[in-house]
Amino acid sequence: MGMTIAEKIIAAAAGVNEVKPGDIHTVELDRLMSNDGTTHLTIDMYNKLKNPHIADVNKLVWIVDHNVPCDSVKTAASHKKMRDFAKEHGIKFYEGAGVCHQVMMENHVTSGELIFGADSHTCAYGAVGAFGTGVGCTDYLYAMVTGKSWLLVPETLRFNLKGKLKDGVYARDLILTIIGKIGANGANYMAMEFGGEGLKTLNMSDRISICNLCVEAGAKTALMEVDDITIDYLKEHGRKPKHSFSSDADAKFAKVYDINLDEIEPIVAKPHFVDSVVPAKECLGTHIDEAFLGSCNNGRIEDLRVGAELIKGKKVAPLVRFLVVPASAAVYEQALKEGIIDTFMESGAIVMNPNCSVCWGSCQGVIGENEVLISTGTRNFKGRAGHKDSFIYLASAATVTASAIKGEITTADLL
Amino acid sequence: MGMTIAEKIIAAAAGVNEVKPGDIHTVELDRLMSNDGTTHLTIDMYNKLKNPHIADVNKLVWIVDHNVPCDSVKTAASHKKMRDFAKEHGIKFYEGAGVCHQVMMENHVTSGELIFGADSHTCAYGAVGAFGTGVGCTDYLYAMVTGKSWLLVPETLRFNLKGKLKDGVYARDLILTIIGKIGANGANYMAMEFGGEGLKTLNMSDRISICNLCVEAGAKTALMEVDDITIDYLKEHGRKPKHSFSSDADAKFAKVYDINLDEIEPIVAKPHFVDSVVPAKECLGTHIDEAFLGSCNNGRIEDLRVGAELIKGKKVAPLVRFLVVPASAAVYEQALKEGIIDTFMESGAIVMNPNCSVCWGSCQGVIGENEVLISTGTRNFKGRAGHKDSFIYLASAATVTASAIKGEITTADLL
Repeated sequence: MGMTIAEKIIAAAAGVNEVKPGDIHTVELDRLMSNDGTTHLTIDMYNKLKNPHIADVNKLVWIVDHNVPCDSVKTAASHKKMRDFAKEHGIKFYEGAGVCHQVMMENHVTSGELIFGADSHTCAYGAVGAFGTGVGCTDYLYAMVTGKSWLLVPETLRFNLKGKLKDGVYARDLILTIIGKIGANGANYMAMEFGGEGLKTLNMSDRISICNLCVEAGAKTALMEVDDITIDYLKEHGRKPKHSFSSDADAKFAKVYDINLDEIEPIVAKPHFVDSVVPAKECLGTHIDEAFLGSCNNGRIEDLRVGAELIKGKKVAPLVRFLVVPASAAVYEQALKEGIIDTFMESGAIVMNPNCSVCWGSCQGVIGENEVLISTGTRNFKGRAGHKDSFIYLASAATVTASAIKGEITTADLL
Repeated sequence: MGMTIAEKIIAAAAGVNEVKPGDIHTVELDRLMSNDGTTHLTIDMYNKLKNPHIADVNKLVWIVDHNVPCDSVKTAASHKKMRDFAKEHGIKFYEGAGVCHQVMMENHVTSGELIFGADSHTCAYGAVGAFGTGVGCTDYLYAMVTGKSWLLVPETLRFNLKGKLKDGVYARDLILTIIGKIGANGANYMAMEFGGEGLKTLNMSDRISICNLCVEAGAKTALMEVDDITIDYLKEHGRKPKHSFSSDADAKFAKVYDINLDEIEPIVAKPHFVDSVVPAKECLGTHIDEAFLGSCNNGRIEDLRVGAELIKGKKVAPLVRFLVVPASAAVYEQALKEGIIDTFMESGAIVMNPNCSVCWGSCQGVIGENEVLISTGTRNFKGRAGHKDSFIYLASAATVTASAIKGEITTADLL
C-alpha cells in the first residue's frame, strides 16, 4: 500500500515499514524547538519531576522571539529562566536572531525530519519536506525528557499545483485562497501536502509562507515534495536531507485539490478570521491606521524586496504607522546589503529588530480601539494585535506596502 | 548690572531690559514641545476648558517617542488621542522620528529661544544657547492656550571649561563627573552655564549630551555660549539664531567652577543615583546582563561611531543583550550610510527603531530581578529600567560597548 509523505516520515520515525491514517505510533523526534511563549512553563514542570533529565540535549533549540527585547518585568523573568536553564544544560539558544521558524529554517531543519515545536506555526518546516507540528508545553516536556512522543497518523489532503503565479500575485495570496476555499477547519488534524509542476515555480520563501499558514486551516502539518530547490536551499545552508520523500503513486489522500496558480488573485483575509478571504479589490478604500510587513509568514528578504521596490521614492501616508520587521537577523543583514533598510527608513517606515512583533501583537505595534491594521502576519483573530474592538486584514507584502503608502487598502497595481 | 545667558533670554522673553534672580516674570514662549509621556493628559484638560483654543499652533511640536511602536492597548489609545488632536488642530507631529529632544535639536530649536517641553530633559536645548525647561502638563496647557507662562529667574552656576578631553574620554564622562561633584541637588532650580576655551573642543553632540543631563543635578536649565560651532550646526539644519547671548563680564553667578577637561577620566554612575559616580575602573568585572547604547543623551551618530569602532569584528558576549537605539531616524539613516548598523548587526547587537527605549524602561529592554544594565541613558534610579531589584550603571558609549563585548563592566582601553 502506498504512503504519503507524512506517513513515510512517521513510519521512519516509528521504525516500522508502514503506517496508516488513524494508527497511533511512538516516534523518535529529530528536533525540539521551543520559544519564549511557553518555555518557562516547561521549565517549571521539568523542575518538579522526580528524576529530571534531558534525553538528548542536541535535539533542543530554544529561541527567544516573542518579546524581544523584553517589554516587562514579567517577560524579563521568563526570559531569564529560559536563558539560565539553556546555559546550565547546554541547550542551543537564540535571542534576537529572529522569529523561531525562520531561525529554524535557516539553521536546523532538514527534509524528512520529525520536529515538535512549542508553537502552532511549526508546520512551516514542511517547506523542506520536514514534518513539523506544534505542541503544548506538556507534550514538549515529555519529548524533551524521553526524546520520543506519540502521533496519531493524519490523513493527507493533496494539493496539485499547476501553472505559475501572475506578476503581482504571491504565495501569500495562494495560501490565503486555499484557506478560504477549504475553510479554517478544512484540514483539521490532516497533513496538507503540496506537489506538482507548479511547485517548481515557487521558491523556498514562497514554500515557507505556504506551509507556515496551513495550521490556519487546522492542519496537523504541511509537507512539500523535496526537489532541486529544496536540495539547493539545504546545501546553501550547509545541510543535507535526512530523507527525500514523495508520496507514492498509490498513496491514499483524503481529498485531492487541483490548484491552477494562474488563477490566483491578490487576496485579503478580512477581520476576524483567516478564512474570511475576498479579492483584495473588494476592500479598496478601507482606511488603515497601521501596516505590518514582517513575521515568519512573510518577513523574508523576498518579501522585503517586494515592499521596498514599491515604496522606493515614496512616503508612508501621513499618520499611518508602517512597521517593517525582518524575520531574522540574517534577513536584516541581507536587507542592509541591498539598501532595503535605507529605502524603508527614507519612506518613513519604522524598522524594527527581528522578532514576532505585530503578528504576536503583545508588545510592538499594538493597535487601539477601532483601529485598523493591514498585516502580513499569521492571524487576524479579534484582539490579536491589541484592542478587542480593532480590525486586522491579512494580505501580501505588496498589498500591505501599497496600503501603507495610500493610507487605505489598495493593491500595488493601483498605486 | 550684567546678566547671565539665562537672565538675558528671560528678559527678552518678558520684554524687559533687566531681570534678576528671584524675580518672577511673565514670558512669551517660542516653542512648546510635548511627547507621549503626558500629552494625553494635556488634551483631557484642554477638552474640559470652557473656551478651548491654542494661542499659536505654530509653536507646538508633538512627538511620540516613549512607546514607539506602542506596546499596549493603553498606549495605543493615548497615541491615538494625540494623533487625532494634532491632525484636527494642525499641530506639527512626529511619530517614529526619534527621541523628542534629538528631533527638536535637528528640526526646531535655535539660540536665544525660550522653550517649554513636557519632559525633564528639555534642558538639552541649551547646547545651542536656548533656554529649555521641563514642565508638567498643567503648565504646558496654560502655555498652549496663552502662548505665555511665568518664570522665577534662576541663579546661574558657571562652568568654565579649560583644556581638552583625552582620547577615550567623552562629554558623557565630563557631565557625570560634574554631577558627581555638585551632587543631584547641586544645581536645584539654577541655570548651569558652560563657557570658556574648553567649550570650543566640544562638538554639538557633546554639548547636547552635557546640557541634557543637567536636570540630573536639579538644574532648571542648561546654557552654552553661542559660538561658531553653534552657528555652523544651525546653518547645517537651515536655521539662524534668534539671539546669540553670552554672559556679561560683570554677570553675577551663584558659583563659578573651573573644570579642566584634561583631568576627566572614564566615569560610571553606580546604582541608584546619577551622582553616585566613581572612576569606571572601580567597577571593573561587574557582571552585566544588558547593555544599552542610545537615548537623547548618548544615541547620536558620534556615539554610535564610538561603539561601532570598538565592536567591529567582535561579538557581543554570550547571553548578554546589547541594544543599540539611534536617537533619531536621521541618526539611523546616517549610521546606515556609514555601515554602522551593519557592524552592530554582525556583532549580534539588537538594533532598534529610534525611540526612548531602555532609557525610559517601560517597554523595550526591560530588565528583571537582580539583573544588571549598563546604559548610556539618562537615569539609573531604582526600578527605572524594570524590576525594583535591578541595577543600572550609567557610562559613556565607549564603556557601554566595551562592557557589552566583555560581559562585565570594562573600559575600552582594556579590551
